[in-house]
Amino acid sequence: MRIGVIGGGQLARMMIPPAVELGVELRVLAEAEHSSAALAATAVGDYRDVDTVLAFAADVDVITFDHEHVPQHVLEALVASGAAVHPGPAALAIAQDKTLMRERLTALGAPVPDWARVADASELGAFLADHGGVAVVKTPRGGYDGKGVRVVRDAAAADDWFADATDGLLVEEFVPFRRELAQLVARRPSGAIAAWPLVETVQKDGVCAEVFAPAPRAGRLVEQARELAELIAVGLEVTGVLAVELFETDDGRLLVNELAMRPHNTGHWTIDGATTSQFEQHLRAVLDLPLGDPSPTAPVSVMVNVLGGPDGERMPDRYAAAMADRPEAKLHSYGKDSRPGRKVGHVTATGDELDDVVARARAAAAFFQG
Amino acid sequence: MRIGVIGGGQLARMMIPPAVELGVELRVLAEAEHSSAALAATAVGDYRDVDTVLAFAADVDVITFDHEHVPQHVLEALVASGAAVHPGPAALAIAQDKTLMRERLTALGAPVPDWARVADASELGAFLADHGGVAVVKTPRGGYDGKGVRVVRDAAAADDWFADATDGLLVEEFVPFRRELAQLVARRPSGAIAAWPLVETVQKDGVCAEVFAPAPRAGRLVEQARELAELIAVGLEVTGVLAVELFETDDGRLLVNELAMRPHNTGHWTIDGATTSQFEQHLRAVLDLPLGDPSPTAPVSVMVNVLGGPDGERMPDRYAAAMADRPEAKLHSYGKDSRPGRKVGHVTATGDELDDVVARARAAAAFFQG
Repeated sequence: MRIGVIGGGQLARMMIPPAVELGVELRVLAEAEHSSAALAATAVGDYRDVDTVLAFAADVDVITFDHEHVPQHVLEALVASGAAVHPGPAALAIAQDKTLMRERLTALGAPVPDWARVADASELGAFLADHGGVAVVKTPRGGYDGKGVRVVRDAAAADDWFADATDGLLVEEFVPFRRELAQLVARRPSGAIAAWPLVETVQKDGVCAEVFAPAPRAGRLVEQARELAELIAVGLEVTGVLAVELFETDDGRLLVNELAMRPHNTGHWTIDGATTSQFEQHLRAVLDLPLGDPSPTAPVSVMVNVLGGPDGERMPDRYAAAMADRPEAKLHSYGKDSRPGRKVGHVTATGDELDDVVARARAAAAFFQG
Repeated sequence: MRIGVIGGGQLARMMIPPAVELGVELRVLAEAEHSSAALAATAVGDYRDVDTVLAFAADVDVITFDHEHVPQHVLEALVASGAAVHPGPAALAIAQDKTLMRERLTALGAPVPDWARVADASELGAFLADHGGVAVVKTPRGGYDGKGVRVVRDAAAADDWFADATDGLLVEEFVPFRRELAQLVARRPSGAIAAWPLVETVQKDGVCAEVFAPAPRAGRLVEQARELAELIAVGLEVTGVLAVELFETDDGRLLVNELAMRPHNTGHWTIDGATTSQFEQHLRAVLDLPLGDPSPTAPVSVMVNVLGGPDGERMPDRYAAAMADRPEAKLHSYGKDSRPGRKVGHVTATGDELDDVVARARAAAAFFQG
C-alpha cells in the first residue's frame, strides 16, 4: 500500500509515524528541500504543475494532501489519469472557495452565518446596513490562519481587496459567540464515517492556540455537531478527515465557520489522546480501509500550539528544561526554525481534570514560547 | 539533535515515529537495501567494518543500536574517534557474551540460576550430576529467539557445539518456573532511571509470543524486579533501554534469565500503552535528555507478536478484514515479507480487564497468523 501526499508541511510530517507503524508506504511531493515532511519526500516540485504531479502520482495507490491548494485543473488531470484522489476535486473545490462553501452549506441546510457575495463597496454597504453596521469580509481564496479575514464597520474598508477579487468577496454577519468548537470526522470513499469527540478551540489573532478535548459543558451540542459534520461529509462527498469549525453563538446555536478537508490543528490532540489519531485515520480512510476507533484514551486532553519563539531556534533546543519540568508532556516539533508567530510544534497533556491538564499543557508549551 | 542507529531492523524502524514527533533526526546504518528501517537509512553497509561505521558516525551526536552485535573493536574505534556511544562498549560486551553476563550479574549480587562455564562433555557431565541430571546449555555468543539454547540430559548432548566453542559453553540449572516476567528500565548517561511496570511474557519455542502489562498478581515482585533492574543498569553502566528477562520460580523467587541493552520485544506494548514508549525513551536516554513518564495509560495492555503467516504476504494484505473486525486494535507491521516463524509485526490492545484485553489482542493478531 502506497500513499502519495501532495505538500510537505507538518500535516504530511505527522502522517509519517502512523504510516511507519502500519507498514504503509508514504511518499511526499514537497514544495522545497528541507520541508517539514522531508523524511518521506520522494519528490520536490511545484504542485501547480500538471506534469510534476502526474509523474509523482504514477506509482502510488492513492493521492491525498497536506493542504487544499492544488489547482482544480491539476486535480482533474490526476483523476483523468486514473489516479485515486482523496478528497476528490469536487470536494476540494468547496474547501478552496469560501463563497462556494457558503453556497453549498446553505443548500445542504447546514446552519451558517448570514452571508452574501458582494462585488463592490456599495453591496458591502448594503449588507452592513442590514446587519447592524458590522460584518466580516473574507477573500474567497487563499486565506488561512486569520489571513484574508477582516472585521469591517465601513463600506470602504475592503476597497483594497475588491480590486483583485474577480469573483467578489464573501461577507458574513458578525456572529456574537460564546466560544469556538470543532468537530472532526473521517469518511471512507465507500461511506463509513467515524467521529472524534467535539472539542473546544481557543483562537488567538485568528490562529488556533489551544484545544480542549472533549469540549467541556457541551451537552446537546455534542450530538448536534456530530450530525452536522456527518451531514456535511456525506453531502459534500468528503473523503479522509473533515474538520468542521463551529461557533457556539451567544444564544446557544451552532453555526459552521470554516471547513478543512484534511487533518487539522484542532485534531492534533488525537495523536496522544485517542485510540486512533486523525493522521492514522486519514491514512485508513484514503486507502478505503475500515476506520479505527476514534475514542479518547483519557478523560481530558489539551493541546497547546507552539507559536514562534526566538528567531532561528528549534523546539529541541529547549528540551532539556521542558522535559525535566514536565516529564509527562508530549512534545511535537515540526522540524522548523522558529519565527515569531510561526507554528513550529505543539504540546499535548492528558489527564482526569480539565483545569489541571490545561495548566500542565500550558506550562510545558511555555518553555518554547518567546 | 541527530542520532545514528546501527542496524536497520524493526527496533530501528520503531524509533522513527518518536524521532519524527520530537523533531530529532534519526539516521540508520542498515545492513541491506529494503531494511525494516529503510525510511531512515542514510547508509547501507557492514557494521563489522570500522571504516564504514566511523564514516556513518562522523556527523551524528550519538550512536546507538538496533542490535547488540557490533564487534568490540568497532565500538572501541568509535569511542576513540570521539563519538558518544550508548550503550557503551563495556556494557555491550556483557550483552554479547552470556558467560560474561553471568559472571558480572553474580558479582553484582543479582539472583541468577546456578551456572558454570564448561569446556567439554566431561565438565558438562559433572554439572548435570550436581543438578539432577538436567541443565540448559547456551552458546555464549550469537544466540537469540531460542537459538543457541538447548535443554540437555546427557553429557554428550552438546558435543556439536563444543567444537566451535573456544571459550567453552555456558551451562545453567534447569529452573522450574511459574512464568516469565520482564522488567524494562531506561537510564541516562548522567544517571537518572525510569522504570515501566513489570510485565508477564509468554514464550513459544523460545520466542516472545505475548506480553501482559502489568504482570497480573505480581505483588511484592513488582518492587523486587524494579530494584533488580536498577541494580543491573547502574552496576553494568547501561545507557538507553535495558530489558531484564526474569523467571518467577516455582518457589516464588526472581532469577535473571537474559539481558538486552536496547528496546525489546517485551516493551512493544508501551507504544500504545504508556505515556512514554520505550522507543521515545531510548532516544531521550541516549541523548541524555530528561526521561519521560513511563506510566501506563490504560489499566491493561496486551501485545501479541505476529509470527510468520503465509510466505511472501505482508500484514497490510489482511488489514481490510482485521480492521473491520477489531477497530480498536493497534496494528504494527515491520515492513517485512512473511516467512513461517518470522516476526513481522505485533498487535496491541488496551482496556480495563485482562481477560477481555487478551481476547481482543489475540483475535486481532489471528487475522495475520497462518
